[in-house]
Amino acid sequence: MHTNIVTCTAPVNIAVIKYWGKKDEKLHIPLNSSLSASLDQKDLKTTTSVVAGTDFTEDELWLNGKKENVESKRIQNVLRLIREGSTVEWKDDPNYKLRIVSTNNFPTAAGLASSASGYCCLVYALAQLYGCRSDLSAIARLGSGSACRSMYGGWVAWEMGRDHESSVAVQVADEKHWPEVQILVCVVSDVQKHTSSSDGMQQSVRTSKLLADRAENIVPKRMEEMKQAILTRDFHTFADLTMKDSDSFHACCADTQPPIYYMNNVSHHIVSLVQSYNKKVGSNKVAYTYDAGPNAVLYIADEKHMVEMLKLLHIYFNPSEGVQRERPFFDNEYLLAKMSTLDEQSLVDGLQVEKRPDALKYILHTKPGPGPQISQDHLISL
Amino acid sequence: MHTNIVTCTAPVNIAVIKYWGKKDEKLHIPLNSSLSASLDQKDLKTTTSVVAGTDFTEDELWLNGKKENVESKRIQNVLRLIREGSTVEWKDDPNYKLRIVSTNNFPTAAGLASSASGYCCLVYALAQLYGCRSDLSAIARLGSGSACRSMYGGWVAWEMGRDHESSVAVQVADEKHWPEVQILVCVVSDVQKHTSSSDGMQQSVRTSKLLADRAENIVPKRMEEMKQAILTRDFHTFADLTMKDSDSFHACCADTQPPIYYMNNVSHHIVSLVQSYNKKVGSNKVAYTYDAGPNAVLYIADEKHMVEMLKLLHIYFNPSEGVQRERPFFDNEYLLAKMSTLDEQSLVDGLQVEKRPDALKYILHTKPGPGPQISQDHLISL
Repeated sequence: MHTNIVTCTAPVNIAVIKYWGKKDEKLHIPLNSSLSASLDQKDLKTTTSVVAGTDFTEDELWLNGKKENVESKRIQNVLRLIREGSTVEWKDDPNYKLRIVSTNNFPTAAGLASSASGYCCLVYALAQLYGCRSDLSAIARLGSGSACRSMYGGWVAWEMGRDHESSVAVQVADEKHWPEVQILVCVVSDVQKHTSSSDGMQQSVRTSKLLADRAENIVPKRMEEMKQAILTRDFHTFADLTMKDSDSFHACCADTQPPIYYMNNVSHHIVSLVQSYNKKVGSNKVAYTYDAGPNAVLYIADEKHMVEMLKLLHIYFNPSEGVQRERPFFDNEYLLAKMSTLDEQSLVDGLQVEKRPDALKYILHTKPGPGPQISQDHLISL
Repeated sequence: MHTNIVTCTAPVNIAVIKYWGKKDEKLHIPLNSSLSASLDQKDLKTTTSVVAGTDFTEDELWLNGKKENVESKRIQNVLRLIREGSTVEWKDDPNYKLRIVSTNNFPTAAGLASSASGYCCLVYALAQLYGCRSDLSAIARLGSGSACRSMYGGWVAWEMGRDHESSVAVQVADEKHWPEVQILVCVVSDVQKHTSSSDGMQQSVRTSKLLADRAENIVPKRMEEMKQAILTRDFHTFADLTMKDSDSFHACCADTQPPIYYMNNVSHHIVSLVQSYNKKVGSNKVAYTYDAGPNAVLYIADEKHMVEMLKLLHIYFNPSEGVQRERPFFDNEYLLAKMSTLDEQSLVDGLQVEKRPDALKYILHTKPGPGPQISQDHLISL
């Protein structure tokens, strides 16, 4: 005997005010509030199917085709809270075992944090299965801090709060609020070994004197300005705050002992290109932001400027012909056609940037999108 | 008719507590106090000859064989203050014109700030010529902030002060105080265009929120700890503070809008090597520090560990055979012989660092040394 299969999808999110450092390691209460956009699931998503049955011998968790340890503290914390908020009769019946299967539709090599969409999707799916009425963003937070922000679509704040109940995500504006905004994910070729976010932020909390100043004095004001910029669709200010916050986060990493460098020479190069482009067009039409890795995520004011930036990325990081690739450099035919109508010379005029062929592996295009969804495309068949 | 020719030499200095940001742009009053060692003039120095004569038609300044503008504000400020403190009769006689000739014995490409030794040497030589009794470090500071620290040998603090008279250098300990300390200057190959220190610090003061915190809350305590570490010859603590301060300075650069990146991938690589080596030997025997460029300066506890680090730099950045070089990778025969006796395998055992051939251009070896000297090797013959 088994329950219905529940399948859900959940978005990746990219922060524009960064989460770095926990006040409470166990409860994942952050040092500061943060804010992100959830990305369109047409382009990037996690899909998770869950089912409980009396005919399974044990709880099982499969991620991207690989069996994972369901006994991990993060998973067990999530399960405990889902059961506490559950309304189904069988919730504490030991005869019911879980089967969980999860996949991502985006390459791991993209360096996009899959833990956010992964834990969000797991919590959302389990909550449907168990009829759980609790705040799901708080439960997802116990899986992975930033997962709470994937619980909503559009623009989402994670209010730091003081305890489990108050450290939750809230939607600032949904995905229809600012439809012009475009996103390019620039995947950098030269991937070195990196300090994990979780280890890195612990080291920063312990050793960076600048991080405390950031969390206490800089981010609170910036959060309010950022919400205002989003609500009034003021892209110039939004971009200014986004770049400042990314820079301040990486400054705290560089101030950590031993220092942590997530950005490399190519990341720095993209920063120059964005700065140079914004200067040329006379206001911020593009904002860069970097998570715990060298890949750039560019938020762009509208399609016109996105296509220009896309062309510039092709010009400055032009992929060599005949190089074997795991996937095409860029494969959106509609945008490639738009790009081809632009004049290269007038685009690069006045930009003081050097070319760096093959420094990018590929580029993904996406937009802000909705929150978790229920799906009928089950990953489990019984 | 002309005066005697006066020739002086002055040292380069490398800060271990960094100067970044001015409180007063005109008087070069810094945001925070700083501390450096003056380097041995056998290895790195500026030489300056000065003479005044009634048979010259105009003031002339020659730097490294190139005629420079003597009317610059910095030079004129220096001359005005030297004359104000002067005791010679001809000091305000318009018939006396100056001839100044200055050279550096180190390559400009070494990325070592030549303005510190240059302005220090100019002020010291002019002071001899004019019989000036003022505090020479304050006058050198008006030429270039960090030049004031070259006015003494050994370990030198620049106390920020409040005005022209109180913002001066003081010697913490002379060059004989800690004779074990060794220095390696690692010149990085890939030199990109950089923001000048002067422009960079102005941008940081204007835009970095972390810089104010650094100057007000972090450096004052660190200055006291650093003096204590030097006075007690506590290398482990000295190294810890040196690395933290370099990291904090570069963190403020990364927090500047637009962000400034002086360190590149090779600089980051050297940081890893130093961290990994210190971990292996069980305490800090090496400290890295980076000025406004990618080159690493390594302060090392003693000759034994310096030779080990030198060998490691040869191993990890091993220069390819047959590559044309402007100068040898490393040319101290005594140290090369010492290096050759070390076993490579036991040195690299346990170090988690990748090799990066040809990422360094060359390495210079030096030590802390004395302050400005009077010389008889004149650069001017009349």
